Amino acid sequence: MTATSGAEKPPLRAPAAPPAGPRVRSFGDRLAHQVAARGSQVVLGLDPDPARLWPRAIELVAGAAESPASAAWDPPGTAAPIAVRAARAVANHCALAIEAVAEQCVAVKLQVACFERLGAPGWAALAEVAQRAREHDLLVIADAKRGDIDVSASAYAEAFLSETPTVFGPVAGLGVDALTVNPLLGGDSLAPLVRTARNWGSGLFVLVRTSNPGAADLQELALAGGGSVSDRIARLVAELGASGLGSAGLTDVGAVLGATAPARLQAMRERMPHAVFLLPGVGAQGGRVEDLAAAFAPGPAGGLIAVSRGIVGAHERGGGDPAGAARDEAARLRELAWRIGG
Amino acid sequence: MTATSGAEKPPLRAPAAPPAGPRVRSFGDRLAHQVAARGSQVVLGLDPDPARLWPRAIELVAGAAESPASAAWDPPGTAAPIAVRAARAVANHCALAIEAVAEQCVAVKLQVACFERLGAPGWAALAEVAQRAREHDLLVIADAKRGDIDVSASAYAEAFLSETPTVFGPVAGLGVDALTVNPLLGGDSLAPLVRTARNWGSGLFVLVRTSNPGAADLQELALAGGGSVSDRIARLVAELGASGLGSAGLTDVGAVLGATAPARLQAMRERMPHAVFLLPGVGAQGGRVEDLAAAFAPGPAGGLIAVSRGIVGAHERGGGDPAGAARDEAARLRELAWRIGG
Repeated sequence: MTATSGAEKPPLRAPAAPPAGPRVRSFGDRLAHQVAARGSQVVLGLDPDPARLWPRAIELVAGAAESPASAAWDPPGTAAPIAVRAARAVANHCALAIEAVAEQCVAVKLQVACFERLGAPGWAALAEVAQRAREHDLLVIADAKRGDIDVSASAYAEAFLSETPTVFGPVAGLGVDALTVNPLLGGDSLAPLVRTARNWGSGLFVLVRTSNPGAADLQELALAGGGSVSDRIARLVAELGASGLGSAGLTDVGAVLGATAPARLQAMRERMPHAVFLLPGVGAQGGRVEDLAAAFAPGPAGGLIAVSRGIVGAHERGGGDPAGAARDEAARLRELAWRIGG
Repeated sequence: MTATSGAEKPPLRAPAAPPAGPRVRSFGDRLAHQVAARGSQVVLGLDPDPARLWPRAIELVAGAAESPASAAWDPPGTAAPIAVRAARAVANHCALAIEAVAEQCVAVKLQVACFERLGAPGWAALAEVAQRAREHDLLVIADAKRGDIDVSASAYAEAFLSETPTVFGPVAGLGVDALTVNPLLGGDSLAPLVRTARNWGSGLFVLVRTSNPGAADLQELALAGGGSVSDRIARLVAELGASGLGSAGLTDVGAVLGATAPARLQAMRERMPHAVFLLPGVGAQGGRVEDLAAAFAPGPAGGLIAVSRGIVGAHERGGGDPAGAARDEAARLRELAWRIGG
C-alpha cells in the first residue's frame, strides 16, 4: 500500500473544541482509523526553543498585538510582557509548523517542558497549540512523562485527559488524545491514569526504553529473575493494556521505545503484541525508519514515528524556507514509513 | 536540643522576589542554615484539591474580585472564569495554610499536579504560592517529579530553577529552591538538572524509593549484579552529588525516600552519606517520625519530613478550625522530629 495523496483523503472535520465529556470509542480504534484515513504514521514533534523559532513566528508577534488572543494573555498592568511575547511566538511557531506539515502527519507530540518554561503564558500557548492541531484533524499527544503516587497521578490525569471537579464547577483539562507517562512508581501509580484515559477514549504511552544513551543506566539493568528493567516495564504495559483492547487489535496503553535501539523492537513486540509503539529518536538522534518494521506487526497504527528537529529544523540542514523544508521532510518520512508499515 | 520557640527565632527576612540570578551559596549550606535558624525539619506539603479547600479560601474568592492579582488573572472577556476562580481559591487555601504553620516549618513542598490541572490560571497560582512561601522565609520545593532526555531536562531546569533565553530577553522560571526529579532516563537525563541547580544554588531530590505500595514493582526489583533498582539509583545520587558538597556536609543532590519503608533508611544513609533525604509518607500514608532517625546522621538538615494531609487536613480528624488544627499538628511534628534529629 502506498501513501494516500492529500487529494484522496477525506475532508478535514470542522474545527473541534476539546471534548466536553468522555469519548465513546477506544483509543486504539480511534488511532487505527486516523492512521488509515490520513495514510500516515508520522507524528510531528513540537519542542519549541524560544531562542530558535522560525523567523515568521517572531514577526507575527508584533502583528498580533491587537488580536483577541493577545488581549486575553496580556491584560493591562500585567508584569510579564517578555513571557507573554515569547509564548505568543512559540504558539505562532507551532501553528506555522502544523500548517506546513499537517497533511503529512497523523498527530502532534507536544513537549510540555518547552511550554512550561514560559509559565502561565506558556501553558496558555500549549492549550492553543493543541487546539490548532485539532483544527487540522491531528491527534494530540502530550509528551509530559508524568508519574506520581495515586492521588497526584489522578491530578495529572485531570490536567491532561479529563477535567477537575471544583466547588465552582468542573475545569476542563488540556483534553489531549494521549499522554506519555513514567512507570518508575509502579502499577498503582499508573492505574488512575489508565482508568481516566480509558473512560475518555484516550491513551497512554509508558516509557519502556527511551532514546537517550543514558537510558541504559537503569532501563537495561539485568534482573536477578532474568530479563531487564525494560522487559519488566513491558510486562506491566501488557498487563495494564489487556482490558483496553479495541476491535482494531490495539490497546490504549502503548509504549515509548527509542528508535535509536531498534535491535530490541522485535522482542518488545512479542512482549506487548497489542501496544502502540511511540518511536522517537529518528533523525537528529540517529534512529532510522528502515529499522522499525517490527513495530508495525499489529497493523499500520502499531508504530508512530515521532520526529521533532528532523522536520521543524529541516531548513537548517538542507536550506530553503522552514515551512517548505519541513513539508518535504515530513512527506519523505511518511512515504518511507508507509512503505515499511502501511 | 529542643525546638526553638517562635519568639527566639531571628526575624523574617523582607519579602523576597525569586532570585534574579544565580545564588552563590550551595543548596546544602543554605538548607543547613535554614533548618538551624528555624529549628524545624518539617516541610508543609501543599497538594490542594479544589473540591476540598478550607472554607475561608472559597469565601475570599468573592472578596478578592477587585484585587490587583485578580485583575491580572481575569481580564475582561477571558473565557475561563471557573478555572480562574478555582485557581484563586487554591492560592488562597495555600496562603492560609502557609500563614498558619510557617513558624513551625522550614519549607513548603508544592505538588505541581494540583496546580497544573487548573491550566494557565493554575500555573499563575503556583507562582503566587511560591512567592507567599518566600515571604514567610520558607524554602520552596517543587514536587514535580520531572525526568526527560537532556534537551527537555534542560527545559524543565529552566522552568523550575533558572530562566529561559528568548529572542525577547530571558523569562524567569519559578525560581524554586529544589525540585523532585525522576531518574528512570538515567544519568544523562539528570545531568542538565544538576548543572543548573548547582549554578543557581538550588537542589534536586531524586526519587529513590517512593512512599506508595506500588513502589516495589520496579524500585525493589533484585538485580543480577546484586542489590535493587533503588540501590542503583542511590549510587547514582551519590555520584551526582559528590561534586556538590557544601561546608555543612550536605550535597545538592538529595533523595526522596518514603517514610513508609523506614527499614531501609539506614542502608540508604550508608550509600548516600551526604544526601538530604526528603521523607514523604508520614501520617495519612502510615509513616512515623519516630522511625526516621537514620536520616539525620549528617546533621539536623539531613532529613526533611514532608507532611501534606496530616497538617492541612488535621481538622478533619481532630476537629477545630483548619488553621489552628494545622498549626498544632505542625508544632507537634516539629518537636517530635527535632527530638530525634535536631
